[in-house]
Amino acid sequence: MKWDVAIIGAGPAGLTAGIYAARSGLKTIIISKDIGGTANSIVAIENWPGYKGSGAELMKRFYEHARDYDIHFAVSEVNSLKKKNNLFIIKTPKEDIECKTIIIATGSERKKLKIPGEEELLGRGVSYCATCDSFFFKNKIVGVIGGSDCATGSALALSDIAKKVYLIYRGEKLKCEDINMKNLEKKENVQIFYNSFPIKVIGKEKVEGIEIVKIKEKSKIDLDGIFIEIGSTPLTEFTKELKIKINSDNFIEVNSDMETSVKGVFACGDVTNFKLKQVVISASQGAIAAKSAGEFLNK
Amino acid sequence: MKWDVAIIGAGPAGLTAGIYAARSGLKTIIISKDIGGTANSIVAIENWPGYKGSGAELMKRFYEHARDYDIHFAVSEVNSLKKKNNLFIIKTPKEDIECKTIIIATGSERKKLKIPGEEELLGRGVSYCATCDSFFFKNKIVGVIGGSDCATGSALALSDIAKKVYLIYRGEKLKCEDINMKNLEKKENVQIFYNSFPIKVIGKEKVEGIEIVKIKEKSKIDLDGIFIEIGSTPLTEFTKELKIKINSDNFIEVNSDMETSVKGVFACGDVTNFKLKQVVISASQGAIAAKSAGEFLNK
Repeated sequence: MKWDVAIIGAGPAGLTAGIYAARSGLKTIIISKDIGGTANSIVAIENWPGYKGSGAELMKRFYEHARDYDIHFAVSEVNSLKKKNNLFIIKTPKEDIECKTIIIATGSERKKLKIPGEEELLGRGVSYCATCDSFFFKNKIVGVIGGSDCATGSALALSDIAKKVYLIYRGEKLKCEDINMKNLEKKENVQIFYNSFPIKVIGKEKVEGIEIVKIKEKSKIDLDGIFIEIGSTPLTEFTKELKIKINSDNFIEVNSDMETSVKGVFACGDVTNFKLKQVVISASQGAIAAKSAGEFLNK
Repeated sequence: MKWDVAIIGAGPAGLTAGIYAARSGLKTIIISKDIGGTANSIVAIENWPGYKGSGAELMKRFYEHARDYDIHFAVSEVNSLKKKNNLFIIKTPKEDIECKTIIIATGSERKKLKIPGEEELLGRGVSYCATCDSFFFKNKIVGVIGGSDCATGSALALSDIAKKVYLIYRGEKLKCEDINMKNLEKKENVQIFYNSFPIKVIGKEKVEGIEIVKIKEKSKIDLDGIFIEIGSTPLTEFTKELKIKINSDNFIEVNSDMETSVKGVFACGDVTNFKLKQVVISASQGAIAAKSAGEFLNK
């Protein structure tokens, strides 16, 4: 069996790509080790228009939707990708899958602090996404961990909605654009802790505070929410052999048609270099990637 | 009242922009003459992941979602946009609305053939969107009206799923890219009628055929579906004074952050120059536009 399109990953991007590909008559396989991806771990989604509920429930609906079409699901890891004449070979532990186009939708994993309380209080004050969750902290006290453009951007956005924002960073100087730096300094409700490491998230039912060690000095900050913005790791290791262009943080570079540097290979969702990571954006990119794959096959 | 962000239009793009803007703490107004836009007229949506139902029902859910937040809705047309110092003035028949940023999400209107049967059989065989509806015509006979890249692209995509595709075009030579032309010629199940005008959609309960006039000759083709791909008209007239850059078809040019050529003005959805028009893409662009407006305000 030679598939028209093989989609790797079954989160919002991969499942939407599958729906669009199958609906346009392409022989479609989705290869993924799970269904739903990191969206499953979102406790409450309030920014998928028209829906309120958990990420896992939404991903169940995406999956059921995809099952309405003629899509083959293969539960598997992917080891590597190869090109052979006009076909791609996807190597999995069990078999080699041949296909004419590939859509990579493997997503990324948020980097964790790995401190006590972080995992236990996820969704109850601990968040990895200010764009998703800032609204839950209207007039509350929050901490942002990190010093990058992501972290400082989150701190700025949160300063418009929270009562007080603590930015906690391990370095001596933030590693963000000057403009973010300047704007943070203007905000009266933002306080920056430099040279500081979080060591414990405090709270029983929900987040109550955070313990930080400032070099040579330990302290505790009372707060309601903690945004951990220390980056994420895209799952792109398996693409190396195909030499798909990735950026310095290992995200796959795509253009607005979701084309990668390798003809016939597309990417969508959190694995791409598009900075904003949202379910609705991943889904949209999945639709575009499937459309582009269809056009590629008709060339 | 000076609004942080004024969104013009309340279809998938405008409502999602509203949800994202309000959730990030921006003072948000949505100005629109209706709720839902052209999505309301979609009889069955099968490509908004996780949902099956009418466009109108989906737009009702988007609207109810938006109503959960502090968004002011103004039911109005917009006459024109002006800039005054660091503010924009939105002129409506009733009032002048002042705001710091604008998100244009006015959508576009599909061009109609204006022939008998077209309106009556909309959603029952007559469609303006092959990407949305081709799946309903698996192994059936369809016609595509038009000769542009859009029309020929639709004919190509349909040829993979339908039994037979008639491409009906008024000109002597298709006005599409050579590659589309070549690929159409390769497809055994595609037949092109040149110099031909559709004059009537035939059918009682559903589409049964189409009457066309070939210069000096009239004929009837039996078919199950008709895809009218003769372009669309974006609603951008009111933006003229602000000199926002538009392309030759009057669509607003945006970059991947949904920025227009005028700083502080963003656009999203069908009104933009992004070629693929889909609810999920409009919603995604609305989210991005709101995020970009927020970042602009923090500069």
